Amino acid sequence: MSEHPQVEIYTKENCSYCEKAKDLFDSKGVEYVTYNVTGDEELFDEMVERADGRQTAPEVFIDDELIGGWDDTQALDETGELDEKLGIATAGGGTEHRKLIISGSGIAGLTAAIYAARSNNDPLVLEGDEPGGQLTLTTDVENFPGFPEGISGPDLINNMKEQAERFGAEIKNGVIADVDDSSRPYRVELSNGDVYTTDAFIAASGASARTLGIPGEDDLMGYGVSTCATCDGAFFRDEEMIVVGGGDAAMEEANFLTKFASKVYLVHRREEFRAEDYWIDRTHEKVEEGDIEIVKNAEVREIHGSVEEGVDYVELVRHPEGYPSDKLDDPETEEFEMDVGAVFLAIGHTPNTDYLEDTAVEMDEAGYIRTEGGKGGGQTKTGVPGIFGAGDVVDYHYQQAVTAAGMGCKAALDADDYLETAELEAEEGATEAAAGDD
Amino acid sequence: MSEHPQVEIYTKENCSYCEKAKDLFDSKGVEYVTYNVTGDEELFDEMVERADGRQTAPEVFIDDELIGGWDDTQALDETGELDEKLGIATAGGGTEHRKLIISGSGIAGLTAAIYAARSNNDPLVLEGDEPGGQLTLTTDVENFPGFPEGISGPDLINNMKEQAERFGAEIKNGVIADVDDSSRPYRVELSNGDVYTTDAFIAASGASARTLGIPGEDDLMGYGVSTCATCDGAFFRDEEMIVVGGGDAAMEEANFLTKFASKVYLVHRREEFRAEDYWIDRTHEKVEEGDIEIVKNAEVREIHGSVEEGVDYVELVRHPEGYPSDKLDDPETEEFEMDVGAVFLAIGHTPNTDYLEDTAVEMDEAGYIRTEGGKGGGQTKTGVPGIFGAGDVVDYHYQQAVTAAGMGCKAALDADDYLETAELEAEEGATEAAAGDD
Repeated sequence: MSEHPQVEIYTKENCSYCEKAKDLFDSKGVEYVTYNVTGDEELFDEMVERADGRQTAPEVFIDDELIGGWDDTQALDETGELDEKLGIATAGGGTEHRKLIISGSGIAGLTAAIYAARSNNDPLVLEGDEPGGQLTLTTDVENFPGFPEGISGPDLINNMKEQAERFGAEIKNGVIADVDDSSRPYRVELSNGDVYTTDAFIAASGASARTLGIPGEDDLMGYGVSTCATCDGAFFRDEEMIVVGGGDAAMEEANFLTKFASKVYLVHRREEFRAEDYWIDRTHEKVEEGDIEIVKNAEVREIHGSVEEGVDYVELVRHPEGYPSDKLDDPETEEFEMDVGAVFLAIGHTPNTDYLEDTAVEMDEAGYIRTEGGKGGGQTKTGVPGIFGAGDVVDYHYQQAVTAAGMGCKAALDADDYLETAELEAEEGATEAAAGDD
Repeated sequence: MSEHPQVEIYTKENCSYCEKAKDLFDSKGVEYVTYNVTGDEELFDEMVERADGRQTAPEVFIDDELIGGWDDTQALDETGELDEKLGIATAGGGTEHRKLIISGSGIAGLTAAIYAARSNNDPLVLEGDEPGGQLTLTTDVENFPGFPEGISGPDLINNMKEQAERFGAEIKNGVIADVDDSSRPYRVELSNGDVYTTDAFIAASGASARTLGIPGEDDLMGYGVSTCATCDGAFFRDEEMIVVGGGDAAMEEANFLTKFASKVYLVHRREEFRAEDYWIDRTHEKVEEGDIEIVKNAEVREIHGSVEEGVDYVELVRHPEGYPSDKLDDPETEEFEMDVGAVFLAIGHTPNTDYLEDTAVEMDEAGYIRTEGGKGGGQTKTGVPGIFGAGDVVDYHYQQAVTAAGMGCKAALDADDYLETAELEAEEGATEAAAGDD
């Protein structure tokens, strides 16, 4: 064993989670070797064997010990165990004070960072467990205004990161475990034990992909079941695939997967789609070409397969009026099976707000932060002075990159107002106190 | 006199109003010659002489008759007189029906157009009397997320225009004179007499530069008084200039004008600036270098000069507690004069909502559209079903490009919801009527 542990990362091309894994080790100043499995069958087989049958990149090894994919690596980092394995002393001890902390480094968090940095509020952005947010999982963003030819999600995020850093924002790896608003400054504790205090806080921690909660799903996640078509689609070339969902994301993923799949089945539990017409039209074109088949009023009930062989087949139910799993006893409910090699879930998101549970910040039953301004939050103020919300952590309705950007900007300007008023009050308080001394 | 009237346009480099004038004639399919006066003193003198002493570009001539600058040309177009002079038959007669009309082609209108086109709502964008909106008057946009090196206002607008057209939006020159919401579809009348009906309407007509309302201002507008530093700054090279205002725009213009001016005086009626810290810092750097001098608690009372010679000198008042023109009889109010060659106004904006006066759309006392969602409008719904507001025509508070973009997106999605619901209701109504026939 060498003095420094050896880090190996199997990667593939256009793999945002691979980039995240590399960024994590870069941010720790740890050297690593990468093996690119794209187009190299031998290397791919080697990866699958070393990774106990897992077929998705990245796969990370430290001194020949399997750490796993990005999720596993990230989880280990949160507890501090990754640093232990790497022989890095944890920062520990001491509490750093900041003027403004932003949780999340997606569109909302980074736009807030650009504006907050320009307002001299010296923002610290804590990236969260999905650095760059959901957009890093998107290939082409066509509707962000200003890019007539479209731009890739990772490129757009990298541009914003560069822009925020150019104006002085600090962006750090770190996942917030808990926020305490019982006294000021507010206390922000990270999952690795680091503690900050802060005068103001912007929650821009977004939302995470939802799963079905059906048998087989958890066991096969990463072995043929995935929430990210752009990450994992290429692993199942020439196989039949299912995409579950009926919104923009489901249709975008289904269209994307036709590049690899012998056929894509779009399974949706209702008759109508809620996707924008643009995606409905693109999907119907692919249906006419025979690349996509729509399976309406149907739900996946169980996924069969094994870690070694991946997904084998899937059990489904269908009812002419939709929502068939609510109507299992109905004689019109039909059970059937499909032989597919992969199942991609695109059924919405859950807001990342667990770390605010001990605060007085009000949330709805789904966990979205309630701010002023009606449906999906037109404004950014929460009920707690100095705590603001922006992007998908608030907005359950519009959920567009540009609406998240708009809210990020508002949150930074609102936080600036708050900080300036607080400063002014402190000065006046000091003046009054001084006057009182006379 | 030739069969087609001869159109001549004096232009200069980096002149957005010159581009607008050329675009207008292009859109009419009318040929013209241009004379670029930048760096050509002889040509500049010729322009000033032919334009009766006016020193700003563009200057437009039709068959040797002085039409004037962009404002004059635009005004003539609105009444249909320009088409008469050009020998073009006015469109006249007939009423075109549209699914969705968007008034205004700034950031909010174009973002709405991108989203509405992708939703197959076939939007018609009527550009209004300032095509491209306020951003076309801005040199560098540094805080629009996604452009780490910044982007020029006109480039950002052109990108969005291209993007909207790529998805099928139609963008037309035209100024709305009146909207009638007393029956459906709503009726939209243009100042040139054209009439449209529309199922839904997005007001994104922005706001226009405010003026001081003091003696000399109107008479010298275009002859040394300007609301656009990037348009006219270069005409007053090596002269002393005044910028009036205390917000971001005033500081940005003052900084920009140091490129040309021998000295820039920033005249502000209060002690404190409301600009973002970024601009305050940049301005203080220029103050230290001697390029800008700040004149606080002062107001311009009268501008002296002539059309022939431009601005001669300016009368001002100052009071240690600010707002001196409210305190003219106060002994502490001091009167003084400044010899400057140009006065640039950057004192805020008035929303362009006159054309909505006959509707039930609610507005505040300043003319800003009231929408749901609190300060500056978090949401886009007005009180009138099917009429939505987005951008600076609603938002008197944040007024950033990216917040306008966010609202434009929301307005298009809200309009799509409205249109789909309306379609569904119409279909159901038809079904019920058919059922009733049985």
